[in-house]
Amino acid sequence: MNDAETVMAHCDELAAFTEEPGRITRPYASESLRRAQETVIAWMREAGMAVTRDNVGNLRARYDGTGRSTLLLGSHLDSVRNAGRYDGPLGVMVAIAAVRRLHDSKHRMPFAIELLAFADEEGLRFGTTYLGSRALAGTFDEAVLAHADAGGITLADAMRSFGGDPSAIEDDHRNGDDLLGYFEVHIEQGPVLEARGLPVGVVESIAGQNRFHITFIGEAGHAGTVPMDRRHDALVVAAMFVIAVEHEARTHEGLVATVGQLEVHPGAANVIPDRVSLSVDVRHADDQTRLDVCGRIIDHAHTLAEGREIAAEVLPVSEHAAVKCSQELVSLLTDSIERSGYEALRLTSGAGHDGVEVSNLTGIAMLFVRCKGGVSHHPAESVTTEDVEIALDVTSRFLEQLARR
Amino acid sequence: MNDAETVMAHCDELAAFTEEPGRITRPYASESLRRAQETVIAWMREAGMAVTRDNVGNLRARYDGTGRSTLLLGSHLDSVRNAGRYDGPLGVMVAIAAVRRLHDSKHRMPFAIELLAFADEEGLRFGTTYLGSRALAGTFDEAVLAHADAGGITLADAMRSFGGDPSAIEDDHRNGDDLLGYFEVHIEQGPVLEARGLPVGVVESIAGQNRFHITFIGEAGHAGTVPMDRRHDALVVAAMFVIAVEHEARTHEGLVATVGQLEVHPGAANVIPDRVSLSVDVRHADDQTRLDVCGRIIDHAHTLAEGREIAAEVLPVSEHAAVKCSQELVSLLTDSIERSGYEALRLTSGAGHDGVEVSNLTGIAMLFVRCKGGVSHHPAESVTTEDVEIALDVTSRFLEQLARR
Repeated sequence: MNDAETVMAHCDELAAFTEEPGRITRPYASESLRRAQETVIAWMREAGMAVTRDNVGNLRARYDGTGRSTLLLGSHLDSVRNAGRYDGPLGVMVAIAAVRRLHDSKHRMPFAIELLAFADEEGLRFGTTYLGSRALAGTFDEAVLAHADAGGITLADAMRSFGGDPSAIEDDHRNGDDLLGYFEVHIEQGPVLEARGLPVGVVESIAGQNRFHITFIGEAGHAGTVPMDRRHDALVVAAMFVIAVEHEARTHEGLVATVGQLEVHPGAANVIPDRVSLSVDVRHADDQTRLDVCGRIIDHAHTLAEGREIAAEVLPVSEHAAVKCSQELVSLLTDSIERSGYEALRLTSGAGHDGVEVSNLTGIAMLFVRCKGGVSHHPAESVTTEDVEIALDVTSRFLEQLARR
Repeated sequence: MNDAETVMAHCDELAAFTEEPGRITRPYASESLRRAQETVIAWMREAGMAVTRDNVGNLRARYDGTGRSTLLLGSHLDSVRNAGRYDGPLGVMVAIAAVRRLHDSKHRMPFAIELLAFADEEGLRFGTTYLGSRALAGTFDEAVLAHADAGGITLADAMRSFGGDPSAIEDDHRNGDDLLGYFEVHIEQGPVLEARGLPVGVVESIAGQNRFHITFIGEAGHAGTVPMDRRHDALVVAAMFVIAVEHEARTHEGLVATVGQLEVHPGAANVIPDRVSLSVDVRHADDQTRLDVCGRIIDHAHTLAEGREIAAEVLPVSEHAAVKCSQELVSLLTDSIERSGYEALRLTSGAGHDGVEVSNLTGIAMLFVRCKGGVSHHPAESVTTEDVEIALDVTSRFLEQLARR
């Protein structure tokens, strides 16, 4: 079995650790995550690393170098509900395989490698995100310790039962003085690499994101008796708005905007809708572009509503600034991909990743791996052994390039 | 108390007969309908009429004339859930008041008056429509006798417990040979009379109607990672379709088209919708116009779906031809309104009524009464005593005009 085949076999093996038989659901601080970690700890040790676990529950495996500096590698081991087997585990497995190559050849780098297997990126259990990397980066909000899961167990209690001390979460905050950067391998979760026929790509930034909840409030009426020119149909305005949102996205390069939820009240075939609520999700690598488009989208909501004499309520739900990857690491990664014989396509990550939090400590870089149909967060998530082999080779070259720097 | 005030008081009194305390819900063959009927029977008798009840449960009250022919008057006593107090009862109460005027003045018309209080027009309990008038018109589909309500009681059992014999439903089929026509007073359920400042209007036809259920099937994807030009967003196509439906309605005089239901799958803020199901309701007085527009709407569904490389499934749900009112009765009614001193605006009824079924027996005519804000099927349903007085006067004049004919 070559190294890439081992990575694939390990991802398969981890897929068996789940809270729901027949599908992959591996939340934070669950029995299935504990058992997955035990297995991963064994693989880390086989690769020559010393392993510890911090309070939040991240695995931290260290492969010493000859110098004082440290490179962080990693990804996460938790999953969404009914997940695929690669989102998260692939990055941890490729990192372990890269370190094992060094260990097997008894090679030490001029820097130590610290391999992080984050305990909570997806936020399935507590509706939070990046708990693991927030603890590492010192951005953990202790207020969330009181959040309860669906069964009423608080995050603090879950953390304790998982072996950590929630009152000592600040101890997880890593000092960044020795860090060279953070590097993560992850499936693309989108269709661009597949469309371009490329096995891997370089992430140059993680998109900023705004979410809104918008409600249009018109006037109900009998579908048979209210003439068209006397209607204040909330759904017609919502439809114009959905199209305006798409138009804004299509006319701003690299921007994505999505209406994913839309609910119609009262929702009867013979009643003109008086209330439509919908979600808007806007993302772009450039914060100013994103904010400009959000402003235009909110204007559209009000203008379209006024045009039909109905009301529009706009509720901002969340806002995250974009995170730029380290130019130096992106450049080294680009060089590593080209040396492996492939075009180094630069991508924006539309999805968030642990790197968002780790960027508070050190510069970050990510390598995306082509996934079938761009599908993720679904059992059909799929990568090829050949692409994983290329990703592993690029990772090894990246370590070499960084050592030579 | 004048006659119109009595009509208003009677509508108030009937509002107390309900299955749901605090709101009006009076389904077919319910205890509340039985008690409402007992009260109405007393009022019919006070107005000099002989009352019988047929198998389906309609009240039939007869005020004899001097000749062999008969005019039908009527409306329904059942209601929707959380109804107003006028949709149905107003027509029965105005008819009783008009007959009582004749009775009090010991006046006999050259024709008998048969006053019908239909037992089921709204179809709340069994999801059917016009059960009462269908039985009268001989268009009752005996297959619906096996339909069960939410509590598992069949229509046949409900009819039996209400005092009728479902196996003898054909006996309710009235011979139409002696009929001069059918005349019904009803609230407009729309805003046209109010907007025109008119108390009443003449219905010249009941619109034909088509219903469709349309599903657009695109492709789900991550809202952050799938570029706009690679999306097959079912909601964007559905939004374009909603606007196309409205445009067709707005560009065809007198046509109304409504998307009242729309459901988005999977309905998550960060997932591109892969499936949107919606209802379309199309109505017009002219059948050919309605059918032409339905054809165009279905074409839009397919064309818009093809434009984004997604699928569209169109499922016809129901189709009813328009019913023209009797030209002779419309002309007499127009004359009666004008003699009362008002403009006789001619309207299409966008809502269906018992007249649709009765038109199988004899020519029909309807008088619409202005209602506040066009609101119906709602506790806020409202008419003024002044408008009811005008409706009652027009009804009396209409009877006189018909007698003189």
